[in-house]
Amino acid sequence: MDMNKPLVGIVMGSDSDLPVMREASDILDELGVPWEMLISSAHRAPEKTANYARQAAGRGLAVIIAGAGGAAHLAGVIAGHTPLPVIGVPIASGALNGVDALYATVQMPPGIPVATVAINGAKNAGILAAQVVSAGLPEVRDKIIDYKEKMARQVDEKSTRLHE
Amino acid sequence: MDMNKPLVGIVMGSDSDLPVMREASDILDELGVPWEMLISSAHRAPEKTANYARQAAGRGLAVIIAGAGGAAHLAGVIAGHTPLPVIGVPIASGALNGVDALYATVQMPPGIPVATVAINGAKNAGILAAQVVSAGLPEVRDKIIDYKEKMARQVDEKSTRLHE
Amino acid sequence: MDMNKPLVGIVMGSDSDLPVMREASDILDELGVPWEMLISSAHRAPEKTANYARQAAGRGLAVIIAGAGGAAHLAGVIAGHTPLPVIGVPIASGALNGVDALYATVQMPPGIPVATVAINGAKNAGILAAQVVSAGLPEVRDKIIDYKEKMARQVDEKSTRLHE
Amino acid sequence: MDMNKPLVGIVMGSDSDLPVMREASDILDELGVPWEMLISSAHRAPEKTANYARQAAGRGLAVIIAGAGGAAHLAGVIAGHTPLPVIGVPIASGALNGVDALYATVQMPPGIPVATVAINGAKNAGILAAQVVSAGLPEVRDKIIDYKEKMARQVDEKSTRLHE
Amino acid sequence: MDMNKPLVGIVMGSDSDLPVMREASDILDELGVPWEMLISSAHRAPEKTANYARQAAGRGLAVIIAGAGGAAHLAGVIAGHTPLPVIGVPIASGALNGVDALYATVQMPPGIPVATVAINGAKNAGILAAQVVSAGLPEVRDKIIDYKEKMARQVDEKSTRLHE
Amino acid sequence: MDMNKPLVGIVMGSDSDLPVMREASDILDELGVPWEMLISSAHRAPEKTANYARQAAGRGLAVIIAGAGGAAHLAGVIAGHTPLPVIGVPIASGALNGVDALYATVQMPPGIPVATVAINGAKNAGILAAQVVSAGLPEVRDKIIDYKEKMARQVDEKSTRLHE
Amino acid sequence: MDMNKPLVGIVMGSDSDLPVMREASDILDELGVPWEMLISSAHRAPEKTANYARQAAGRGLAVIIAGAGGAAHLAGVIAGHTPLPVIGVPIASGALNGVDALYATVQMPPGIPVATVAINGAKNAGILAAQVVSAGLPEVRDKIIDYKEKMARQVDEKSTRLHE
Amino acid sequence: MDMNKPLVGIVMGSDSDLPVMREASDILDELGVPWEMLISSAHRAPEKTANYARQAAGRGLAVIIAGAGGAAHLAGVIAGHTPLPVIGVPIASGALNGVDALYATVQMPPGIPVATVAINGAKNAGILAAQVVSAGLPEVRDKIIDYKEKMARQVDEKSTRLHE
Repeated sequence: MDMNKPLVGIVMGSDSDLPVMREASDILDELGVPWEMLISSAHRAPEKTANYARQAAGRGLAVIIAGAGGAAHLAGVIAGHTPLPVIGVPIASGALNGVDALYATVQMPPGIPVATVAINGAKNAGILAAQVVSAGLPEVRDKIIDYKEKMARQVDEKSTRLHE
Repeated sequence: MDMNKPLVGIVMGSDSDLPVMREASDILDELGVPWEMLISSAHRAPEKTANYARQAAGRGLAVIIAGAGGAAHLAGVIAGHTPLPVIGVPIASGALNGVDALYATVQMPPGIPVATVAINGAKNAGILAAQVVSAGLPEVRDKIIDYKEKMARQVDEKSTRLHE
Repeated sequence: MDMNKPLVGIVMGSDSDLPVMREASDILDELGVPWEMLISSAHRAPEKTANYARQAAGRGLAVIIAGAGGAAHLAGVIAGHTPLPVIGVPIASGALNGVDALYATVQMPPGIPVATVAINGAKNAGILAAQVVSAGLPEVRDKIIDYKEKMARQVDEKSTRLHE
Repeated sequence: MDMNKPLVGIVMGSDSDLPVMREASDILDELGVPWEMLISSAHRAPEKTANYARQAAGRGLAVIIAGAGGAAHLAGVIAGHTPLPVIGVPIASGALNGVDALYATVQMPPGIPVATVAINGAKNAGILAAQVVSAGLPEVRDKIIDYKEKMARQVDEKSTRLHE
Repeated sequence: MDMNKPLVGIVMGSDSDLPVMREASDILDELGVPWEMLISSAHRAPEKTANYARQAAGRGLAVIIAGAGGAAHLAGVIAGHTPLPVIGVPIASGALNGVDALYATVQMPPGIPVATVAINGAKNAGILAAQVVSAGLPEVRDKIIDYKEKMARQVDEKSTRLHE
Repeated sequence: MDMNKPLVGIVMGSDSDLPVMREASDILDELGVPWEMLISSAHRAPEKTANYARQAAGRGLAVIIAGAGGAAHLAGVIAGHTPLPVIGVPIASGALNGVDALYATVQMPPGIPVATVAINGAKNAGILAAQVVSAGLPEVRDKIIDYKEKMARQVDEKSTRLHE
Repeated sequence: MDMNKPLVGIVMGSDSDLPVMREASDILDELGVPWEMLISSAHRAPEKTANYARQAAGRGLAVIIAGAGGAAHLAGVIAGHTPLPVIGVPIASGALNGVDALYATVQMPPGIPVATVAINGAKNAGILAAQVVSAGLPEVRDKIIDYKEKMARQVDEKSTRLHE
Repeated sequence: MDMNKPLVGIVMGSDSDLPVMREASDILDELGVPWEMLISSAHRAPEKTANYARQAAGRGLAVIIAGAGGAAHLAGVIAGHTPLPVIGVPIASGALNGVDALYATVQMPPGIPVATVAINGAKNAGILAAQVVSAGLPEVRDKIIDYKEKMARQVDEKSTRLHE
């Protein structure tokens, strides 16, 4: 994998999803994985979405993260057009507050998986993407191990502060 | 509208959906509206699905019915590629028994409607398609009126039989 | 169809539904489809509702949009009294936040369809109504096609702005 | 109240609801309350339903029980046309197994109550109807008291049998 | 029935339920039905609750309204101790926002009905209570009929105002 | 604690709950904790239920297990009448398949806890009861430790068998 | 049991859970039961969590309360490592508002119970913990009885104030 | 990656999950990815589970698939102990039919992702695992591309057969 080009494509259905999806790019920065970001839509810009998905592997991407709300078809539609692993982020919006997006993202038919994270779980989507690329990139694997150790230390510190 | 060519396209994601979707074609036959039927998939056959949707209006179709289960993207994906009205039939399957398909079909984002009927409600999808085409076809409108009167009579007959 | 008279009837159960339902009339204006608006109630004004539905086809309407919350019976009751296609907008209100309205609108029995859109999806109800009337009105069909192209461009513009 | 004429009207949307709704008439027989039974439909036979509801009070009925499944509008529509108390029985059917019928029956807007019992709870609808008429009929009140005492005894007997 | 004594007992589990339950007493005032109000709890004051329910019929009450949130046992527990009809108001509170209270109120076992109204539907509980006592009180029946006509007029007025 | 008298009272709302609740008594036998069993009902036999709960602590019981379905009030009502810990088993039945029983059991108001286990989780209710009494009974604690070790061994054996 | 050392361990997944979990320690103070508090995490600090659970019984704890939100594994993981009774508090957070935490806490497999209280029900978790230890501590049992009597009096006072 | 050793570890909570999880190993065989299989349990065999997860990366595994039902903690607990990507399969079982397992698997807290597939979606878990390892294994990538093309052809064939 070429670390000078984006390895992770982050796609979202609307610019209103940006505050949530930014957490994916932030953690990818922290873990040292290059990424690119795009707004597209399975319904409003279907050709753009299909083209992006079809060209992703050839352009050197290793994994795609897609976030959408409501009848969240974006991740599934992308998964239909690429052999790459696709990570879906259901985004909470509207009256059903993300249950619709969760079901529309995770309940994919046999043959076309979408690796689904929690509702609004874009940070975990970023970590998962880093885990996917870390197989061939020992320096990313090391950063993930460091990150996990840092989390354990933070739990300890918070527990200690409880007693001060 | 040309009654010698199909006016309604009925698409389903899998041949296992046929027993449900057949109710749409049966009622269209009863109401005198010509139809065609196709198996396609938003995920497993995305090009086929997109092509069918893009060409539908030009081929003389007036409305498309799409039935799918699980993360039911079929109706929404078709709606992204055509100016025609698209009717979605959420199909009950798997552990969530159609709630996933209902949410994935009905909760479409602003701009791309899917006219959703009840879970497994393919018969009503057929009637709705006939209602859509009936604007320009008085003989279909008349058949719909007859059908409604027949339903009211059947209710009366069943009520009468209760007392025999 | 006579474009000098309303083609779409927009009915809502309460004036508190107006902010949501106004999105239907706004998009119909944008797509050049004449409409009329009415407050009625399946429960509080059942005769008014039945009369409106019974006369709709004769008065030249081509489609009815009905929005209601809670045990949302309005669209279904109207559909019982007219051969026209009826579009239901479940409106979020109260403790169940629209799930009740969605189920009460979409789960209609065989024979009486309601074309259901997303919770609070009045804009899509308007677009769907325009799609229904567009069969006989090429200028509406063209506006729908333009509208879809505009959406695709907007996605592109938002994606471009992401990188500025 | 005239005990020689029906005091309770039992209405159901379809003859497939009869096995459930029969439990209402059975318990009314046991409690000595005369009843009548009817199949009607809020959607398929709206005039019949409205006429029945409008004439119910004048014909001497004291309470109406209405059972329906899916988008269960029957009880609510009847309640719109009568000053009598209306008891709704949500009937389990289809993919949502009665949750749709429960929400469509119980979530009535302010002004038009429906006294809702459990999903498929027709027996309790019958008891509730008897409780309603029992205010003016001491012999029914006594039978309800007897019935409650019998239930308590049956619990005792079952508990005793546990240890045999 | 003696109109100089309360005919309807309104019980609630906590004084935090008062803003909701006040709607029941307000509409009973409007419909001319005397009532009394009490705070009790199926869990925190079980003896008080049982005593109140056991004495209600003897004290001349004709119907009891009980409102509670969460695991809302109040209406069901009261119904276990009285032959009177009991109306349950599920109150929205906490993380489940009233779905828990709805299920805990409406899903009563065979033999012990609770006439359940909508979540937070205390106004309808009051109307239902008035409908129950109206059998023997023609002046209450007349007020209910007036109330329904007033609602229909209000719908008309709101619809007219739409066009001003 | 006197091991010659029952330490755990197992109460259920109906003899139809016996096949589920028997798992509680079976595991208590295995863990060497004496128990007694009773059918009672919060609604059909409210006095019996209240009396049993009020006398439980004085009779030497240390914990009560209560199983019920639907609007499952039994555990909560018992908890209102005793200072003992009460374990609730929501039992799956009817159209909602135990979600109603779960909510009606677990969502207790502040002040009156019910220790809720999984839907139909009577075996775990028995283990939990044994854990409660084990504080003062080292031989029960030892049996619980043995039981946990046995479970771990069984997992190992099943895993090994996978490869045979 | 040694009242000079903590008898109840209160564990939470994050310091953001502290406002909820503090209600458990507050009521334990009121009931005179010594406790200790800890932040740990089944996922971010798995070794710390396992060690705490494994040593709890030996250190003299009698019961553990664990609170967590989302995919709330904390109580279940602790229960896997200790023979002590474990009380789980599902904490409302994120888009699913605690339904996820409730299911992830209560639906434990046979063999490993978690005594689950209401969503955010930490106060009841504290009372339940006191009930568990009260078997061997008559002074705690007495405080629980006093607490229940105080609740009943408070209901009476609130009901009286209603009429002032 | 060493194709002579397992690259994918498949773990399940119980041998009753084997019929579902076998679909993961079957598709991995078809895609030419070596795997190993294990029964373990987050609750009944916590040490075994932790040890397996801690050693997985060192033993050369590239991804772990974990399937469990109910309060499905297995995937999350494994993810807490390894830097490898973990794929979770919620398994339908018991009264909630997999909704509990879905929520308990997907709603992981920030920092510890689980790549969740559909309820019972073990086949997709296998494909996703293959997609993860395919980055460094062009022959697996090719097989995935072939597999997708085969699916598209099968859709075509089924559609053709419809018309025979």
